[in-house]
Formats: sequence, C-alpha cells, structure tokens
Amino acid sequence: MDLPSSLLDQAVEQFASLPGIGRKTALRLALHLLKQSPEEVSAFGNAFIRMRNEVQFCSRCHNLCETELCSICRNPKREVALLCVVEDMRDIIAVENTQQFKGFYHVLGGVISPMDGVGPNDLQIESLVNRVAEGEIKEVILALSTTMEGDTTNFYLYKKLAPFEVNITTIARGVAIGDELEYTDEVTLGRSILHRTPYEATLSR
Amino acid sequence: MDLPSSLLDQAVEQFASLPGIGRKTALRLALHLLKQSPEEVSAFGNAFIRMRNEVQFCSRCHNLCETELCSICRNPKREVALLCVVEDMRDIIAVENTQQFKGFYHVLGGVISPMDGVGPNDLQIESLVNRVAEGEIKEVILALSTTMEGDTTNFYLYKKLAPFEVNITTIARGVAIGDELEYTDEVTLGRSILHRTPYEATLSR
Repeated sequence: MDLPSSLLDQAVEQFASLPGIGRKTALRLALHLLKQSPEEVSAFGNAFIRMRNEVQFCSRCHNLCETELCSICRNPKREVALLCVVEDMRDIIAVENTQQFKGFYHVLGGVISPMDGVGPNDLQIESLVNRVAEGEIKEVILALSTTMEGDTTNFYLYKKLAPFEVNITTIARGVAIGDELEYTDEVTLGRSILHRTPYEATLSR
Repeated sequence: MDLPSSLLDQAVEQFASLPGIGRKTALRLALHLLKQSPEEVSAFGNAFIRMRNEVQFCSRCHNLCETELCSICRNPKREVALLCVVEDMRDIIAVENTQQFKGFYHVLGGVISPMDGVGPNDLQIESLVNRVAEGEIKEVILALSTTMEGDTTNFYLYKKLAPFEVNITTIARGVAIGDELEYTDEVTLGRSILHRTPYEATLSR
C-alpha cells in the first residue's frame, strides 16, 4: 500500500537514500519526526543544509574544518617531520584516539579504485607530493585500508614519493591485541610472523 | 577526539537523536551527506521540514493525509459497517497489505500507558465513541498490540463502547502461519487452543 501522504513519502524516500537505511526504518524515522515539534524538525533539517553549505576543507591536509586551516594543522606543538596519510576524516579520529601520533595528517579523500571510477587525479595526491617536496617531512606513514585498493594506492604513493628523501612506512599489520591465534585468519597471522618485532620493543610501551 | 567542525558535530547530533541511530552511524550518515551536492542535501533537509509543516491528519480517522479526509475515508466502496481500531498509521498499512479488510479505520495515536504518561484523553477515544454513536457501524475490530498496554486499552474501549449496539471483536491471536508448535510460546499456543476455530472455516479462504 502506498503511504497516505506524498510529503511523508518524500521524507521516507530521503531517509531511505542514506546508506544502510531501508524503507521500513525510514518510515519509522519519519514518523518519529512527525511527533516532534515543528521547531525541532526545522533544526533537524537545517543542520544538514548548513553543514553542507558551510563546512570547508583544510587547505593543507584536506580535513574538515570551518577555517582556512584545521585545528591539527594550526597546532604548533605537533611534529613537522611526521606525516600520516589516511583515506578520510574518520581515520584521523581513529588515530587521534590512540594518542600515539603527534605528527600531521593528509586526507586523500579515498583510495584508487578503477572499479568505482576513482583514479589518482580524484585524490589529494598532488598536494601530498607538494607537501613532501617542501623537505620538512622525514617520514610518511601510509595508514590506508588493507584492501586491494588500499594496497594499490600505497604502491602508487610509494612510487610518487620515492624521488624524495623521506622514509615511507605503513602501519603494522598483525594479530589484534586480545585476539586468539586460533581465530586469526591465515594472511594476518602469516604477515605477523613475517614482520615479527624484537620482544624488547614491546616492553618500552 | 572531538569532530573538527561544529557544523558536522551538529549534523551528527541530529542524526543521533533519531531512535536506533548511534553516534558512529550518525557520523557515517553525515559524511555521506557531505559527499552529495548542495542541492541534494537541501532537498534532503527540506523534505522533513515540509512534511512536518504541511502534513495533516484526517478529520475522521486521524490517519495522515494532505486533505480534509484521507483517501480511505473518501472511498465510497468501503463498508461503512466495519471499523478497525489501530494504534498508528503503520498498522493501517499492515492491515491494508493483507487485502482482507474493506471497512474503515480509526487511529488512536497510541495505547493507554500510565508509565509513559499516556492517558485516555491523549488518544482519539472520544472521536471513536462519537463515530460509533452515529449508529452506522455494526462491528468494531480492535487491532492493538498484545502488550499489557494494548490489553488495558482494549478493555477501556470495550467499556466505553458497551452502551452502543455494536459488536466488539479483536483480531485472532494464535500460532503464526509457517510457525512450528515446538517453538511457539506457551501463552500464544494456549490461547490458540482455547480459541480454536472450526476446520471448515479455514477451508473457505
């Protein structure tokens, strides 16, 4: 049966256009909004419109921000020599939460994926090369997904950055802390044996 | 870590205010919107604002609509003698999908629930009594949830409608079609034995 109101139908369609939200959930969300006051719904809808229109991207690292430079790029206490390359903003949050990294970031905006029509020119690779070319960065840490696309992008960046005097590293891959060997997949376990670390190094943490 | 933009943060907050959506999902949804064009996001936000401001309720059955009467109440082919009482609009869709009911509906807007501060006066009970008092309705089918609140509401409506010459029925409760007895809960199975139906009645379908 069709919905009794085309306005409701449009709201449901909009919710259902979001990733991971089906029509049943969309209807539940739309009916939830109908029970809110008009002011609350107005604030709800306008929050997205304002965000889309006013959010900017940091001119240096391409993180989201509301000013020319993001709060991390403006922080003089961070280490200029270290640069962490990530896919998107959520990865910055994840790395920041570890409190293990005090350098700067560079957001690519995705990974090279010919299947999805994403080529090197769609990503912030040129600006990364320019940053490295300035000479202040001593180490570039590639922190991309361990997918085929991530690996391809890693290799492409490695080739692009090879002419410069800079160490290129990737974050360690291995058995997650708390995981049991029995349930770890073979590729991960194999890699963690291949790239084993001196025991003393684990003590210093 | 805080989000790098208060605008993004507000959008995430708004998504997270929806039932069943946590902050991680909210962030994913907000970042999805950031990748859409400003026009698309504008259509997204405005769909909810328009819906909230312009949707009306049918003056007879309290279903959602955009005119004085909803499409079901305006349909002259439906049976005036049958009235199905439901909690909310979604139940109308569910009943309509069965194609087994050709009467009219009455949307209560919820069930009596003192715990949630919902009393009889918060529901469309008076207008239901008025509709029944008109005398055209011969049977009122109570199709509320089988919760304690639903049962309480059923009993309250039964008392309110008892003075009128009208049959009051509830939808059948029993083992769902396709279910195995082994996995049916005792209360449902017990009820389905108590309210067993003549075998011939099941053949006529």
